[in-house]
Amino acid sequence: MINIGIIGYGYWGPNLCRNFNLQQNAKLYAIAESKIERHKSIKDQFPSVKLYGSADEIINDNQVDAIVIATPVYSHFELAMKALKSGKHVMLEKPMTSNVKQAVKLIEVSENLGLVLMVDHTFLYTAAVQKIKEMIDSGVIGNLKYFDSTRINLGLFQSDVNVLWDLAPHDISIILHLLKERPFSVNATGISHLNNGIEDLAYLTLNYNNNMIAHFNCSWTSPVKVRQILVGGDKKMILYNDIEPTEKLKVYDTSYAVSNDEEKFKFLIDYRQGDILIPKISNHEALFMVAKDFVASIVDSQRPLSDSHLGFEVVKILEAAEKSIKNNGKEIKL
Amino acid sequence: MINIGIIGYGYWGPNLCRNFNLQQNAKLYAIAESKIERHKSIKDQFPSVKLYGSADEIINDNQVDAIVIATPVYSHFELAMKALKSGKHVMLEKPMTSNVKQAVKLIEVSENLGLVLMVDHTFLYTAAVQKIKEMIDSGVIGNLKYFDSTRINLGLFQSDVNVLWDLAPHDISIILHLLKERPFSVNATGISHLNNGIEDLAYLTLNYNNNMIAHFNCSWTSPVKVRQILVGGDKKMILYNDIEPTEKLKVYDTSYAVSNDEEKFKFLIDYRQGDILIPKISNHEALFMVAKDFVASIVDSQRPLSDSHLGFEVVKILEAAEKSIKNNGKEIKL
Amino acid sequence: MINIGIIGYGYWGPNLCRNFNLQQNAKLYAIAESKIERHKSIKDQFPSVKLYGSADEIINDNQVDAIVIATPVYSHFELAMKALKSGKHVMLEKPMTSNVKQAVKLIEVSENLGLVLMVDHTFLYTAAVQKIKEMIDSGVIGNLKYFDSTRINLGLFQSDVNVLWDLAPHDISIILHLLKERPFSVNATGISHLNNGIEDLAYLTLNYNNNMIAHFNCSWTSPVKVRQILVGGDKKMILYNDIEPTEKLKVYDTSYAVSNDEEKFKFLIDYRQGDILIPKISNHEALFMVAKDFVASIVDSQRPLSDSHLGFEVVKILEAAEKSIKNNGKEIKL
Amino acid sequence: MINIGIIGYGYWGPNLCRNFNLQQNAKLYAIAESKIERHKSIKDQFPSVKLYGSADEIINDNQVDAIVIATPVYSHFELAMKALKSGKHVMLEKPMTSNVKQAVKLIEVSENLGLVLMVDHTFLYTAAVQKIKEMIDSGVIGNLKYFDSTRINLGLFQSDVNVLWDLAPHDISIILHLLKERPFSVNATGISHLNNGIEDLAYLTLNYNNNMIAHFNCSWTSPVKVRQILVGGDKKMILYNDIEPTEKLKVYDTSYAVSNDEEKFKFLIDYRQGDILIPKISNHEALFMVAKDFVASIVDSQRPLSDSHLGFEVVKILEAAEKSIKNNGKEIKL
Repeated sequence: MINIGIIGYGYWGPNLCRNFNLQQNAKLYAIAESKIERHKSIKDQFPSVKLYGSADEIINDNQVDAIVIATPVYSHFELAMKALKSGKHVMLEKPMTSNVKQAVKLIEVSENLGLVLMVDHTFLYTAAVQKIKEMIDSGVIGNLKYFDSTRINLGLFQSDVNVLWDLAPHDISIILHLLKERPFSVNATGISHLNNGIEDLAYLTLNYNNNMIAHFNCSWTSPVKVRQILVGGDKKMILYNDIEPTEKLKVYDTSYAVSNDEEKFKFLIDYRQGDILIPKISNHEALFMVAKDFVASIVDSQRPLSDSHLGFEVVKILEAAEKSIKNNGKEIKL
Repeated sequence: MINIGIIGYGYWGPNLCRNFNLQQNAKLYAIAESKIERHKSIKDQFPSVKLYGSADEIINDNQVDAIVIATPVYSHFELAMKALKSGKHVMLEKPMTSNVKQAVKLIEVSENLGLVLMVDHTFLYTAAVQKIKEMIDSGVIGNLKYFDSTRINLGLFQSDVNVLWDLAPHDISIILHLLKERPFSVNATGISHLNNGIEDLAYLTLNYNNNMIAHFNCSWTSPVKVRQILVGGDKKMILYNDIEPTEKLKVYDTSYAVSNDEEKFKFLIDYRQGDILIPKISNHEALFMVAKDFVASIVDSQRPLSDSHLGFEVVKILEAAEKSIKNNGKEIKL
Repeated sequence: MINIGIIGYGYWGPNLCRNFNLQQNAKLYAIAESKIERHKSIKDQFPSVKLYGSADEIINDNQVDAIVIATPVYSHFELAMKALKSGKHVMLEKPMTSNVKQAVKLIEVSENLGLVLMVDHTFLYTAAVQKIKEMIDSGVIGNLKYFDSTRINLGLFQSDVNVLWDLAPHDISIILHLLKERPFSVNATGISHLNNGIEDLAYLTLNYNNNMIAHFNCSWTSPVKVRQILVGGDKKMILYNDIEPTEKLKVYDTSYAVSNDEEKFKFLIDYRQGDILIPKISNHEALFMVAKDFVASIVDSQRPLSDSHLGFEVVKILEAAEKSIKNNGKEIKL
Repeated sequence: MINIGIIGYGYWGPNLCRNFNLQQNAKLYAIAESKIERHKSIKDQFPSVKLYGSADEIINDNQVDAIVIATPVYSHFELAMKALKSGKHVMLEKPMTSNVKQAVKLIEVSENLGLVLMVDHTFLYTAAVQKIKEMIDSGVIGNLKYFDSTRINLGLFQSDVNVLWDLAPHDISIILHLLKERPFSVNATGISHLNNGIEDLAYLTLNYNNNMIAHFNCSWTSPVKVRQILVGGDKKMILYNDIEPTEKLKVYDTSYAVSNDEEKFKFLIDYRQGDILIPKISNHEALFMVAKDFVASIVDSQRPLSDSHLGFEVVKILEAAEKSIKNNGKEIKL
């Protein structure tokens, strides 16, 4: 039985607690929350769980085997490093760290100590993403030509990280998971309407070698909520609308085939638009599967699906994107 | 009575003919179409109109007062120049010309000769854009913070111009019409899946000085058709969905107000989400109003709404966008 | 070559003219329109067609082989009878006649004289209805359990017939076409908000013997336009949304299976919700196929798909429905 | 402090417990649940609440002031009667009872004993219904002309009551709440696909005197989930789509005005279609307000909004509807 300690009981913390509480091989053992006014609610919900006022206490508790860190990004590195050094497995909320250097160090330490280091990229565990992955791997989608994501709404303006650090990790982790190929560079543009250097609206392009492009439109300042990804293959294309309660995926039997004409600069293109399929996907809660994977990785000494290397790659792209924005959209090599 | 001659009876030509035919102060006098197989259909539709096999014949016809050019972009400059030099007023389909230099020359010649030179940016004449313009001008939207357009579908791949030259003129002409301010630079990225240097999918950012940004997502390779613009003001925001048959505009009483906190890096933001209004807009055909404006500009010697200077600005942005794509997304000053 | 004469150039007339004009084995020969103010527009559109001011002239024209009647319902019987008696094939707009007696007489006369008598139930010729028919006939839908139609909008209030006579013929003709079984009775309720005895909102139930029911919700007084039919089979169910431009049909792999439990009044029901398919359907214009069927029926002496017997059955149901409304919803046997 | 006892911890019970637990002037004191396998989960959720295995125990507990009955309909009468007779205030889940007679008796007893008797018609407490009520009462909607509800999905087939008893109470309670006028009769049709006399699909019309009609389309056998009500006034019309997460109400500035023409049977109708408004409505949980109203009614000896008389009227209509179905749609006077 793995004893889990969770640091941070803010927005996401209650969901983490609930889902770790449901695991077979683990137990929600302790929660650390520095805001004392939240303690009563924690006690009501989890009367038998140990309750601490500081992260250090939970890190120093010898009964705790693994620590889940659900605090603001800037604190991830220090807390995770302490936790690893005290011999504890660690799961970090996304994004993994504030920069690439921190991510590299955490990976190094975790691997030297033989500890699991995981990042909670929840979307990898959704039935929708799993179905897309399955369709790509089986070849029915064909070669990927583009990935186009829109993730916008009237969202909480963060005061420490820009909108890409806040929203794009979802989509970047998905594209990294779906495709073996990696982008060689990024371009990004954006604007900080508050003039505080923290963009609330930003556009990111990932450039790939293999005739593929990815684009991300992220905003905290949209009147409508959109959570939509287009995955374009040369055989089929997928529309993933995460707001739809039941019909999240639409698979379009749409494509075009190109045959070079003899005339220079002339292309003959055959368009095809066939049936549309809305596959049935399961209703499991993704976060339950995240928690399960973390526990299984500890028990069976295996790599989680959303491991530290994927987390590191997400941070690498975010860091480059921010650099591109600050350099007026200049291409930044990865 | 102004005698109108139309060059090119392809995709858009029939619509132009029909709408000029309905004008009070003008008469559809002649059509030039080089593809002889289209002549029978033209005769059936417009039995009393003069029918020519070449553009030159119509340009040289002394009865023709004004010429509408609905041919591929690469031919615009030469045809328009000839028409102006033979003393005829000219309306060009969008985009005006293949490059800035050509646009400048046409403007020069038309102004020297005192002839009307207009570009058919049809969207400026739609009830939806007129309503948005009216709301911005009246101040109810507040200061514009962003303009975000998505114009994607499984479209015909053009063999001479990329997807931005094909689709973005609509949206660029709209933003130029709505706002007095002009962008100072552009960034663009894109991909040519056919590897022929003609992008079928591209992303364009316009950078403004006044805390404003515009972005355009254009694609010929989407399984779904989207024609959507978000116009974000600091008082209200508008969603313009051109595919909706009747509810094209949604005006969101959504905004946030920022008050600087005393703590450094801390911002207090008040979010507001109120009612949504779907204003009734008229059903007039925009192209009828385009034709009417062209005729009125000739008759009354006035500038049309969609004049050559706006057409030139669109071309300037497109040219810069293409340069940015070819330079890996580098910022191009305007 | 069949010479077609069309009586009535109101709302639907221009569409009929255009589609008969496109037929190979027929020619749009004459149009009769009593409103003289419409004659100029007819001449502009169809300069070579004979133009009459009265129905009688067209009926007495010996060159006319077949007559299409697109006038108000109350005039159908008299005009059709005259046309048949002068030896002409007849196509009537829906509904066929004002009552059952008239329909019976027309059928009798047409059959005695060996003339084609057809009713323009256009929906039978749409790709959507043909696809549904094909799916039902092939067995993939299973046995039909219900048919539920909603056809509402802010429509023109008719002054001679109620909303069922105006809108329900579409849906009734579809269900009659899809299913061999016939309803044995009807119930209907409705209201005349103008208090003139002509219902602008009405609800119709068709009762079937074979564990099947059909229901129709018709209104001229809805703020939203809905054109939707649910076809429930015991294997699959279809949602037919006629307003959708491209995704008109959604086929749900949804069903339940019942196994009688041993306990009295206890049923074990297995629910199943699988994939959803949006089949690609063709884009042909249904009215072109209507015209083609009329012409082919004359040329080849065959029954059209939408023949007089189907037209009669529609009228029979409408007559019974009106009787039920006037009798407070009482069941009326067919 | 009012001690609340809840009988039945099935589908709805947990929601009731949670919401009573949040009340200021009441305390969730005891739960009775006969299925012992559910007890562990209750203890986990509500460790300090008394847990009983039978309804009688909770009814006989002197510490309990008020009882909430969330059991199948057939058991409502007996349990409520016992509870009232033991001096306890009672809230019943909808529908109140299995028939009118039972409802009358419960009302009689509760009034004789001076006890609160309430029915949980939750929808009366939603922000959407409150907003509609407010718009009707303020006169902006004008006189109501129709009420048209569709409440369909692939729902659980009940084994004791038909689909109207299961789903229509929501819509019937809403129309009774919105309008002072009462229907004078009902017509209903339906079908039992299981042939067990329990309709899984049914249509109900309520007939009113004042130029108004209401219709309800209820089904357990639809592949799509629809929860939609059209409220038609002679000034404005409302579309209430309960599935929409944020835009539940759309208010259409749509109407027609009738002016009698001098000619008999001729009506001049002016149609008007103006703006559409989507009013902002609050996000409060309706069931919290239900619980609050029950507690306040006890504490302040006042009638709850959703009182026993409204509950009785719902049952009266359902009983008449069932009679109408069994009599082939015959009008049943209320």
